[in-house]
Amino acid sequence: MSKLPVTYADVEAAARRLAGVAHRTPVLTSRSVNQLTNARVFFKCENFQRTGSFKFRGAYNALAQLSPQQKQQGVLTFSSGNHAQAIALAGQLLGIQTTVVMPKDAPEVKLAATRGYGAEVILYDRAQMSREELAQELSHERQLTIIPPYDHPQIIAGQGTAAKELIEEVEHLDLLLVCCGGGGLLSGSAIATKDSTAKTTPTSPYCRVIGVEPAQADDAQRSFYTKTLQVVHNPDTIADGARTPSLGKFTFPLVLHYVDEMLAVSEEAIARQMFFLWERLKIVVEPTGALAAAALLEGIITMPEARIGVIISGGNIDFKRLKQYEQLLTKEA
Amino acid sequence: MSKLPVTYADVEAAARRLAGVAHRTPVLTSRSVNQLTNARVFFKCENFQRTGSFKFRGAYNALAQLSPQQKQQGVLTFSSGNHAQAIALAGQLLGIQTTVVMPKDAPEVKLAATRGYGAEVILYDRAQMSREELAQELSHERQLTIIPPYDHPQIIAGQGTAAKELIEEVEHLDLLLVCCGGGGLLSGSAIATKDSTAKTTPTSPYCRVIGVEPAQADDAQRSFYTKTLQVVHNPDTIADGARTPSLGKFTFPLVLHYVDEMLAVSEEAIARQMFFLWERLKIVVEPTGALAAAALLEGIITMPEARIGVIISGGNIDFKRLKQYEQLLTKEA
Repeated sequence: MSKLPVTYADVEAAARRLAGVAHRTPVLTSRSVNQLTNARVFFKCENFQRTGSFKFRGAYNALAQLSPQQKQQGVLTFSSGNHAQAIALAGQLLGIQTTVVMPKDAPEVKLAATRGYGAEVILYDRAQMSREELAQELSHERQLTIIPPYDHPQIIAGQGTAAKELIEEVEHLDLLLVCCGGGGLLSGSAIATKDSTAKTTPTSPYCRVIGVEPAQADDAQRSFYTKTLQVVHNPDTIADGARTPSLGKFTFPLVLHYVDEMLAVSEEAIARQMFFLWERLKIVVEPTGALAAAALLEGIITMPEARIGVIISGGNIDFKRLKQYEQLLTKEA
Repeated sequence: MSKLPVTYADVEAAARRLAGVAHRTPVLTSRSVNQLTNARVFFKCENFQRTGSFKFRGAYNALAQLSPQQKQQGVLTFSSGNHAQAIALAGQLLGIQTTVVMPKDAPEVKLAATRGYGAEVILYDRAQMSREELAQELSHERQLTIIPPYDHPQIIAGQGTAAKELIEEVEHLDLLLVCCGGGGLLSGSAIATKDSTAKTTPTSPYCRVIGVEPAQADDAQRSFYTKTLQVVHNPDTIADGARTPSLGKFTFPLVLHYVDEMLAVSEEAIARQMFFLWERLKIVVEPTGALAAAALLEGIITMPEARIGVIISGGNIDFKRLKQYEQLLTKEA
């Protein structure tokens, strides 16, 4: 196997760049969850991260490493979600102009948040062009560096710092559950947990790392088990962070190398466990943020007496969609 | 003025009883809230307290002080809300039998939670009898000690420990905002903040303490300004913790003595700011828990550059009521 594109040293370097800039997010525990799962469960709460999701870690790590010329020319990204806000804030903090390509039907609240952090937003029509093409064109025209949402070594290394903090805080894990869209958070988390080259800070090398997807967007699970990249098109899931078409050229080999298993959960399970987390932990978690917890709370994976880490990836809810989530529950009951 | 029924020494003693039993809840801050209010705002998050609200503090403090005989005979309370669960858990931890009188139309989720902590629940028909009468009768018949939800010196002292922790953590406050139902949390908080007899731990004696009620249940505000106890009957507010008929014989004199001002907020403001807290702080806050924050976030009270404490009293949401809360927003927009 060829050399992997990201190592523990990259995650450590990212952690140094993020110190004092990203929040060291809290780790929450719950008696009722421990009882229900017969395990000790540690929730790493990236919904409390700046911009409301883990995405800030990777975005800042990538932008901080641009050359002076690149910084001066500015960056561009394409995202309708959390990565857009993360790039916008990282740019604001580092004094870098940011341009974000978003679909013109993106939620008003996300457009406003991205603009609020000082990004220029360029809208496009999903029906007429692909965001990648438009981004390529704009980047060429305006000399902007593209920072993609997940398939980028510095993005992956940055996302790995959340799991690194979790392991430093709770010391040992038998199982780590991580949601999976494009695989940036999952591969970064797996490196932070299992890379045996880690020297200076603790890892959990025997910890099982499991990625969790929506059943309606299970491309990564299929890629993992067939060892051939599978693609989905506009999957219909409330977990909007997992609507990515496929793993990437960096994340796929990392997932294959480090991840032990891939699981999928239904839309009903995502909604049910999202509300369960709201109700029991008193924290606001977005649908994608509930994916990893859902696999555990639904009993799809069990590990009696184990120490289990669960990454809550974000908490950016569009409250206009609450009704849709509630309807999923009603359907079930 | 006659001697007040609760002093700082009582709050300190309560804090000692609660050490290692109650959670020392987190204090959250938010850049966007600070910017919006032009102040430094500290949210004391009792939604993360055991049973999901501050009520556990008072309940445990009261039950821990019962005589051996009273403990053996058991206790009784009347509450359809957070106090019921708090008494049930405190009883479970202290090995005391608990009986809770609840209306038979109380939400199923609250009945289940109260029973889950081992309490015996006795249902009554609101139309046919008063809960106080039924409680008196049962207490006499079964030799149970009644622990009322707020008008009790040990309950008040226990509730004061939240503000005590807040001041210890942030050191100085210019303003403290506290929701007000029966006045247990408000008077306890005011004692913890302003009682000049405090010797061993810091207070903020010049801090303004303001109580906040729903406009549709503004009995305490009217009592405060007329200096005569005012009563409301079944006020129609989403802030169910503030549906209490009036201040009590212990809480009224304490509120009159210590509190600087009373404010009221509309139903729309409660719903709007509850969702704002969910969205920005990523925490689940119940309507009553959003009262104090709403007065600040709606600009009803302003104090430029000040250090402002806000008590988030609880996070027990009946998710079946979400639609009702959302409708209040739609009405507004």
